[in-house]
Amino acid sequence: MTKQEIIHDMLKASRQAARVLAVATTAQKDAALERIAAALRDRSAEIVAENQKDIAAAAEKGLSAALIDRLTLTPERIEDVARSVEEIVALPDPIGDVFDLKTRPNGLRVGRMRVPLGVIGIVFESRPNVVIDAATLCLKSGNAVVLRGGSEAANSNRVLGAIAAAAVGESGLPAAAVQVIGDTDRELVRHLLQARGLVDLVIPRGGEGLIRFVDQTATVPIILHYKGVCHAFVDKDADLAKALPIVENAKCHRPGVCNALETLLLHRDIVDDFLPLVAERLTTCGVALRGDKPSRVVAPQLDEATAADWDAEYLDLILSVAVVADVDDALAHIAAHGSGHTEAIITENYTTAARFLREADASCIVVNASTRFNDGGQLGLGAEMGISTTKLHAYGPMGLAELTTSKFVVLGSGQVRE
Amino acid sequence: MTKQEIIHDMLKASRQAARVLAVATTAQKDAALERIAAALRDRSAEIVAENQKDIAAAAEKGLSAALIDRLTLTPERIEDVARSVEEIVALPDPIGDVFDLKTRPNGLRVGRMRVPLGVIGIVFESRPNVVIDAATLCLKSGNAVVLRGGSEAANSNRVLGAIAAAAVGESGLPAAAVQVIGDTDRELVRHLLQARGLVDLVIPRGGEGLIRFVDQTATVPIILHYKGVCHAFVDKDADLAKALPIVENAKCHRPGVCNALETLLLHRDIVDDFLPLVAERLTTCGVALRGDKPSRVVAPQLDEATAADWDAEYLDLILSVAVVADVDDALAHIAAHGSGHTEAIITENYTTAARFLREADASCIVVNASTRFNDGGQLGLGAEMGISTTKLHAYGPMGLAELTTSKFVVLGSGQVRE
Repeated sequence: MTKQEIIHDMLKASRQAARVLAVATTAQKDAALERIAAALRDRSAEIVAENQKDIAAAAEKGLSAALIDRLTLTPERIEDVARSVEEIVALPDPIGDVFDLKTRPNGLRVGRMRVPLGVIGIVFESRPNVVIDAATLCLKSGNAVVLRGGSEAANSNRVLGAIAAAAVGESGLPAAAVQVIGDTDRELVRHLLQARGLVDLVIPRGGEGLIRFVDQTATVPIILHYKGVCHAFVDKDADLAKALPIVENAKCHRPGVCNALETLLLHRDIVDDFLPLVAERLTTCGVALRGDKPSRVVAPQLDEATAADWDAEYLDLILSVAVVADVDDALAHIAAHGSGHTEAIITENYTTAARFLREADASCIVVNASTRFNDGGQLGLGAEMGISTTKLHAYGPMGLAELTTSKFVVLGSGQVRE
Repeated sequence: MTKQEIIHDMLKASRQAARVLAVATTAQKDAALERIAAALRDRSAEIVAENQKDIAAAAEKGLSAALIDRLTLTPERIEDVARSVEEIVALPDPIGDVFDLKTRPNGLRVGRMRVPLGVIGIVFESRPNVVIDAATLCLKSGNAVVLRGGSEAANSNRVLGAIAAAAVGESGLPAAAVQVIGDTDRELVRHLLQARGLVDLVIPRGGEGLIRFVDQTATVPIILHYKGVCHAFVDKDADLAKALPIVENAKCHRPGVCNALETLLLHRDIVDDFLPLVAERLTTCGVALRGDKPSRVVAPQLDEATAADWDAEYLDLILSVAVVADVDDALAHIAAHGSGHTEAIITENYTTAARFLREADASCIVVNASTRFNDGGQLGLGAEMGISTTKLHAYGPMGLAELTTSKFVVLGSGQVRE
């Protein structure tokens, strides 16, 4: 079999499984999820043993301690994964929901029914728990999934995929609902990304290099989760007592994630009052600040920002600071340097807030709160597959509903078209 | 300039225009639409003169009378186009709508705001009125549009594009909101379909050859409108008095369109009663029927259907007829031969109707009504861009809302993440 045939055969098995999943009841899908959670606990030692092989290989290759930590599965972490599966059981099943049901003048009742997409591919890096997170979200939303992780976690991914597939099979749903591509040859990813008509959607999860590779290679539908160059604009009408904890939280709560603050935009009217306060607070938290010329007039201790800083996703305790003339200037900066991820404004001014909400172009616009809220759980979607920064189909966090589509349903009583 | 640079420059101008359109008020957009309608009427003679050039060329090339008719613009047809623009003025503006606004436990109010996609490309064939239909739908939904029609209508498309752009410019919105690619070299279509990051969506409108070309060439997001192999299943519990006019309407009302009926599936329990009736009625309407073996036992006058008939989109007064054992058998036939477009069932049985609604996989499922209702206007969306048979982003008729996306809006009062 060629590599292409391997992928095509897997996807055809997925399609068969997807037909069954599409009409499975919530009880059947939840039973399969419960079995996955139980199997993870039962086979925890086996998972750890397979994971150890990956860790040994990583250590031999000289991977960083941080990367090895991301790879590592302990019994505690496996328990966390099992609990996250149970959280998905608790979420409402989106499939079969009928919404927007309206009656037409001729008496036809027209609505939309939520249905699965079909076969979803996930291409990811590093953390092997993605196998279970992604597989269970797809399963609950009635989709079959094919997963392909990085070679550094190959043994862990394989065992997790096998456990999930076996649990689904034991529950009476098709085991092919969850398949992991075991072969680590990159050629297989290419075939997955170009399997037009066999896969309905591919979602990459990982660093910018992976996302770019998928973007450049795919000929099937994809939804990308690019970087987050997130801004907070502190307006002249901001309540500075709100602004200070929001900026601190957005930058320091978890600097290594995509919804962390990277650039602070300060209205020139509040720079004198606010910049010394925020510089002191953030410096105490270990943040290195880089300012433009006007901000360094007020706070000369700031490092000098260069042009590259305005487009940087630091994912670290670094913050760039720029002074802007007004909300137009702030919106222009965001239009030039934003990444469509998360943009925040701090203001008490109704009109300014409304303009920013409407005009800032990103998947999530926040007024008077931390950028860290752009997250499926925080926004009320439950678990999330990731955060889409592309506009088609899903923009922002992707929960269960974003893994579905809707078809029109027309309920008649003999109507014909005149 | 290379062909690629021509396209990229047009798309960059579109992007600039899109930024302005995204924040334009409904009144501004409607004023631009009104000006387009007025300009079409004022410049009707000029449009007809340009259209005559295309018709003369088509006649010289020996195009069929039907194709030439599709190309032809008369003052009356131009008036119809102007009226359809006014119908779009009358539709509600989807942009800026906030929906699903909910309050989180921490007091954050989280909702979604409808925003434009940005820059939309339309690749189409034959009928030049698509320039105005597509451009005005994009304009109302806040998107900039780049259109590329077939060479057979090049002069008509160019003048219609120029009129629309000028009208938009006179209204104070950017004229680059509507651009027609005047050069008829196919190379330009390829560059449009591969302008990653410069165009947010491309929609092809035309025959299967065009759709296939776009599908195989595009690396940008596309939404396809493939063929409609639509079925009607007359169940054993059907009210045959309803079934007869529905089948007739679905087949005969307008046989050349994608939501016309192509295959009739008859439950074996009603074949004896129903097939003679329907055969007589349809034959009277000029329909040629092709049956499988069991149906030809009941109605020997039917031609014999071959394997190819079950996948055929006739777009003509031809209907294939198959007898099925039950609803499972009907669903299996549809799964094997359906095109994801429109599927209808005629039944009085609640459980059978519910199963068919849930399990038939198509953009529109109809109970006890004609397949001809799968249409944006009929389903209550207003005007439509076409009917998507792909599941991502839009499935079924695409109205104004389907040309938009939504971003999350988060209204806080100082919240930070714990």
